Formats: sequence, structure tokens, C-alpha cells
Amino acid sequence: MTAYSRDAHDIYRQSFAIIRSEADLSRIPADLEAVAVRVAHACGMPNVVDDLAFSEGAGRAGRTALIDGAPILCDCRMVAEGITRARLPADNAVVCTLNEPEVTPMARDLETTRSAAAVELWRPHLAGSVVAIGNAPTALFHLLALLDDPATPRPALILGFPVGYVGAAESKDDLIADSRGVPFVALRGRRGGSAMAAAAVNALGRETHG
Amino acid sequence: MTAYSRDAHDIYRQSFAIIRSEADLSRIPADLEAVAVRVAHACGMPNVVDDLAFSEGAGRAGRTALIDGAPILCDCRMVAEGITRARLPADNAVVCTLNEPEVTPMARDLETTRSAAAVELWRPHLAGSVVAIGNAPTALFHLLALLDDPATPRPALILGFPVGYVGAAESKDDLIADSRGVPFVALRGRRGGSAMAAAAVNALGRETHG
Repeated sequence: MTAYSRDAHDIYRQSFAIIRSEADLSRIPADLEAVAVRVAHACGMPNVVDDLAFSEGAGRAGRTALIDGAPILCDCRMVAEGITRARLPADNAVVCTLNEPEVTPMARDLETTRSAAAVELWRPHLAGSVVAIGNAPTALFHLLALLDDPATPRPALILGFPVGYVGAAESKDDLIADSRGVPFVALRGRRGGSAMAAAAVNALGRETHG
Repeated sequence: MTAYSRDAHDIYRQSFAIIRSEADLSRIPADLEAVAVRVAHACGMPNVVDDLAFSEGAGRAGRTALIDGAPILCDCRMVAEGITRARLPADNAVVCTLNEPEVTPMARDLETTRSAAAVELWRPHLAGSVVAIGNAPTALFHLLALLDDPATPRPALILGFPVGYVGAAESKDDLIADSRGVPFVALRGRRGGSAMAAAAVNALGRETHG
């Protein structure tokens, strides 16, 4: 049996030290450093830092929104489960509409995916929210389409981490090219996922062990 | 706005076709092909297939266990959330003990992490189970230590996908070097995660759309 560290705090400390020694954080602004480190922590790949794209002040915008009580809008249950509630500064609501009963008929009517239809149900929560997309490119595409309407309330921050082969890179490129005036952090390319999206939210919350 | 596919079935079909064209599946046995493809699907990286390690017949063992009603033991809630219930052939129980109230005092008593302590609570469910570890190296290390006792009931299959910088690669190397007689699938190295672990379970379930 291999000897191994059994102290959670020590494991975190060692992990973050390894990431800081291996990842190139030089172009990451101070208000996003924790986000970059925690996203790399979530996936075991320090080089995801190289693919992070962001608007200026995105980290500050997300932190301020959370402190002000912003709801966190998640595209799937895995993102919602990955958010550490003890880190949320204002007992923020974590909202995932994907399994609401109206989503399946809405997807049929709108001729889109359930993930995209679920974004329609975010409308009453959008203003000042933190959006965390960790699965579905179609959720991000649908959100961007909603935001093309200037009457749609703006989130405080979009965390764009959809993953996969069809639409993931494209949806994030679309966000990065024109975020519709909304601060954003996104991971270019096919990589992404719910663990990274949740880690980004956790990094914007308050410091706790773990 | 970029044009994009909005048909979930078509997105899956295209995604799997891309993975099959880019990943090297030549050394993957037939009973693990769906697992390899779905793990690659979960993370956006076809080259994870190159890092898969497995025992002979592991896919068959997992499928048979699920059909026979095996419980699925998950090290974290994100894995549990990622398992598509409609794919489970016997309405299998999905068990995650991490948030049981006794886990925190047990971790203190055992001088280990909560993830490892939670594995102690798997004991009554271990026989014939499908274990899906997608987060904590210490959960896998602790399970292997339990299995060092020949009196510990054997799972039917261990899906080893812990992720990270401290212990993840080592715990999987330990499993691969000596799986204590238990069939296994694992991803060598730092990469892993709850999405991959859940995808492996989903691949062993029955075929449904999505």
C-alpha cells in the first residue's frame, strides 16, 4: 500500500502549491488568480490556465455579486452539487431549472435541447446573477440569444465552461467575441465541465478550508 | 450568432462520431468500447482513451452486476448526480455516504479525510457493487486498504477516476498494480473527475437516447 496524505487541508495546500509551480499565471489578473488555480485544481491539468479567457474585472464583478446575494444559475445538477455552500457569502440561492417539469414540453415547442429550454426559466433570476454553465453548449448559446435582446436583464457574470465536441468551443468563442456587455470567464476549446464551473464559483466565494 | 445544432440526439451522434474518428480505440476490448467513448465524451479529450487501464472482462462484469441489481457506490454527490437513472437496468440504488452525519466524527477518529471515512459506510453495500470514484484519491486508497482484508466483501467492479495532484495518480497506480481480485477500469495520471466516473457507469447501463 502506497503511503498517502490523509489530511484534507494539507492535500489542498500541496495541490495549490503544485499548480502554482506548474501553471503560467503571469497573464491572469489578481482578481482571477483564485479562479484560475481552482479551475486547474478541479481537472488535474495546470495548462487549462492557458486557455482561460476573461473580461477585465470579471473576478471583482463575480465576488461583488455573490456578496450582494446574487443567485447562481447552473445549467445542470452536477454544477449545483459542486458548489460548496459554506463558501457562499450571502447564503446565495443555487438555481438549476433543468429538471423542472415544464422544460421537456418547452424544449419540444422551441425545437431545442432541454438544457437550452431550461435557460428560459432563468429569466426572472437573470438580473445581477452569476451564471455557471458546465455542461451544455446549447445552454450558453441560448443565453447569448436571450442577451441579444437589450431588454433582457444582464447577469453580473457568466462562467462559461461547457464541454464537448459539438458546439462547446463555438459557444465559448461566441461569448468571448461578444459577451453582450456581461463580464465573463470562459475556457476556450473543447475542455470544460461541471467541476470546473463549480470550482470557479467556489473561488469567487469566501475562503474556507476545502 | 453562430448557427448550432439544437437536437440532443444529433449532438450525441455527432459527438460520438468525432470521438471514434479521433480516439485510438484499437486496444480497447469490445466490452469496454462504450465506456471508453463515453469517458472521452464527458471531458472533451479523445486522448484519455490512451490512459485507460482495465482488467479483462471488466465491462462484462459491470454490466452483469448492474443487471443483477448492484448498488452503485459513489464517492461524491457530483458522481451520483451524473448517473442517468433511465440507463440503470434494475432501478439500481445510487449510494453516496459522504454527507452522512457520522462521517465527520469518523474522519476525526480515523485521522483521515471525510471522503475516506465515508468509504467505511460502504461496507454493508460492498458485495457485488459497482464502485464509482470520481473525486477523492483518499477514497480509493481507503477502499484498497479495506480490500487488503480478505474478509472484506468484493465489489463487482471498481471505476477509478479520482482527479488531482496529490494521490490521484498514485491511488490509481495502486489499483492497477493490484486490484485485490476486483475487476477495474481506471484512468492513469492526474486526470479524472466525477463526470468521467458517472459516464463510465452510464456506459455500462442500457442504451437510451442521451
